[in-house]
Amino acid sequence: MSDVDASRRPDVAPVLGGQPVVGVVGGGQLARMLAEAATPLGVRLRVLAGPHDEGAPEVVPDTVVGSAEDPDALVAFAAGVDVLTFDHENVDHGTLGRIASAGTPVRPGPGTLAFSDKAHQRRAFAEAGLPVPPFAVLDVEDGADLLMAALDFARRHGGRVVAKASRGGYDGRGVWMLDEDEIPSFVGAYRGAPLVLEPRLELRAEVAALVARRPSGEVRTWPLVETVQVNGMCDEVLLPAPVPAELAAQAASVAERVAATTGAVGVLAIELFVIDGEDGPRVLVNEIAPRVHNSGHLTIEGCVTSQFEQHLRAVLDWPLGPTGQTAPCAAMVNVVGTGGADPRSRQAAALAAVPEAHVHLYGKDPRTGRKVGHVTVLGDDLATVRGRARRAADLLAGAPAVGGSTP
Amino acid sequence: MSDVDASRRPDVAPVLGGQPVVGVVGGGQLARMLAEAATPLGVRLRVLAGPHDEGAPEVVPDTVVGSAEDPDALVAFAAGVDVLTFDHENVDHGTLGRIASAGTPVRPGPGTLAFSDKAHQRRAFAEAGLPVPPFAVLDVEDGADLLMAALDFARRHGGRVVAKASRGGYDGRGVWMLDEDEIPSFVGAYRGAPLVLEPRLELRAEVAALVARRPSGEVRTWPLVETVQVNGMCDEVLLPAPVPAELAAQAASVAERVAATTGAVGVLAIELFVIDGEDGPRVLVNEIAPRVHNSGHLTIEGCVTSQFEQHLRAVLDWPLGPTGQTAPCAAMVNVVGTGGADPRSRQAAALAAVPEAHVHLYGKDPRTGRKVGHVTVLGDDLATVRGRARRAADLLAGAPAVGGSTP
Repeated sequence: MSDVDASRRPDVAPVLGGQPVVGVVGGGQLARMLAEAATPLGVRLRVLAGPHDEGAPEVVPDTVVGSAEDPDALVAFAAGVDVLTFDHENVDHGTLGRIASAGTPVRPGPGTLAFSDKAHQRRAFAEAGLPVPPFAVLDVEDGADLLMAALDFARRHGGRVVAKASRGGYDGRGVWMLDEDEIPSFVGAYRGAPLVLEPRLELRAEVAALVARRPSGEVRTWPLVETVQVNGMCDEVLLPAPVPAELAAQAASVAERVAATTGAVGVLAIELFVIDGEDGPRVLVNEIAPRVHNSGHLTIEGCVTSQFEQHLRAVLDWPLGPTGQTAPCAAMVNVVGTGGADPRSRQAAALAAVPEAHVHLYGKDPRTGRKVGHVTVLGDDLATVRGRARRAADLLAGAPAVGGSTP
Repeated sequence: MSDVDASRRPDVAPVLGGQPVVGVVGGGQLARMLAEAATPLGVRLRVLAGPHDEGAPEVVPDTVVGSAEDPDALVAFAAGVDVLTFDHENVDHGTLGRIASAGTPVRPGPGTLAFSDKAHQRRAFAEAGLPVPPFAVLDVEDGADLLMAALDFARRHGGRVVAKASRGGYDGRGVWMLDEDEIPSFVGAYRGAPLVLEPRLELRAEVAALVARRPSGEVRTWPLVETVQVNGMCDEVLLPAPVPAELAAQAASVAERVAATTGAVGVLAIELFVIDGEDGPRVLVNEIAPRVHNSGHLTIEGCVTSQFEQHLRAVLDWPLGPTGQTAPCAAMVNVVGTGGADPRSRQAAALAAVPEAHVHLYGKDPRTGRKVGHVTVLGDDLATVRGRARRAADLLAGAPAVGGSTP
């Protein structure tokens, strides 16, 4: 006979006296990593997960299932939290405005989330005097004028353009590389959100600046990182970025101006192009994400305060933490699903090859092309840590171990 | 109308294909911090929590409630996990033997857990030639001989002894400092487990060696730390320990021999006395804990691989990680409950004073004298990081902020 029946815990533990509750809209890997940061801080994380979300629900007891695009679900969720924040931006902004008016802080607010629209972003940044690539916004509702405008833009910029859907794209989706002769058929077939056109620029590098901002205005930037893209998806992140100190300072200054322009609260990631200017290299704002971001995952081990802890501190209006590096170099490589081997059964192989690897798996089904984890390695030499992080990530994703007989 | 009803998630998420499941007996802060390490590794942690356990249940969805001293509950719990390990040692060893025989690895095994008995520990270590203090084991069942033996031991060691209950003590409980004239009344009143007597030694320092061992025999030791005790309870841990390199090497060697003698799998903490010997300072084994331990909390940020991640890797028989320091110095200070202010509502005050503090709160009711969290600070100067970690811990525990008007 058991003195207590061994049984699943029926309920989520009650919130403790005085303990802050942060509500996160969305239950993917960003919410999961926010939860990892919330636990030691003694912050209660409550997640509004979509019915198919993976990542956070596995490890967050206080998960509520509901659609972030459903006003009723969102309002009900917000009623139980001290502050509302986000794992993604696909949320009804009008409802968020109502929630904020009713007294629950929404951080970042709807005005900042509106910058997820690439057309709004480009126009507003250009108006604020921030450095952006040449661009044109084409609204497909305009009909006949659209093709002429697109061709005109392409001709003025060397005949080769990038077209980006202003809403709904991620990890390379919603982005098209077009030569002038492809434009008519593309425009003829395109149905969707307004397009942002920009020239195909000669890039020296892509870098990302991460910044955190409290409601009171305190701002912290992290050291600039290089982002290595493959097929439009972030593949590797390297610290430090291979740019002169003046350029890094320029990027940090741009990041702080973007934070001010967008009114961001919490972490904000700014993806930047590095191009050759008349007076040497300079940065252009490519696009931003008003939240924690793939480009900042290496801050978990590589900086004194991670982007995830800092985001919680910022949205709670707590003092921000220092962002300096904990090691001279860091490399992060994403683990991308192959549809075959499951990374959750391959940790030992990865750790055998790279014992110092910091493995992060997201609890997601490893469908082909999907980000299901990442690996960070710290050290003294960037080429070395990059190679070792790549090796561990490949082994997690399903590459054969060296000397292994698996094809 | 919601397209999906916003409702609490009814069930714990299913274990994913190939994902290892580690069962932890006990649901306190050690299980909580094991969970923090399990999440990024993609390891499923399942916790057997006692009905009054705090710490892990708040943050571990896969928590089962049941008594670790109930054989039926333990057997049922073990049936669903790949390996069984421990947050505490108050477990029925016979049942663990049955579980191991039935095919579920129990790590550490019953033979190692038996070393939690201080009398067994001392005798076995002395027999193995490990350095231990002079000691006598007094079994209260012996009756009349007890008093004579205690007095005899005290007279041979300067009249002042330490008496320790061989089982059930922790954080200073079950330990008594006795002068010779107090022995008769103490012995007359004592009812309990056999006592271990030892002299009150002149200590130069108390240090702790942490070691991890896989079933295959791979062993890793961490850098030696100093442990600062207050009223028999660990209060601060400092890295590096203030001892010469030869003594640190001696301690590491003793730790590896203790690991071999106990047959430990997973992390093992060895508390050591540093005393003056004839040829300079030397170490004596005070006592051990066959698990992750308070003396190793600073490895979370202060070493490449934390004791919590390493313990999971060791019990899963995965390759162990490097244990080197991430910064020249680290200090950990426990947050001890005052019965008043709740640390879960005082994080902002602590972070305002010490922005670089790594705060760890355990989700426990802050009853007076109870460990409810810890703070780690890293840096270049030990006195500085110690002072700053102390300041943050005091603020979390309820000390007034500098310049504050709260008494």
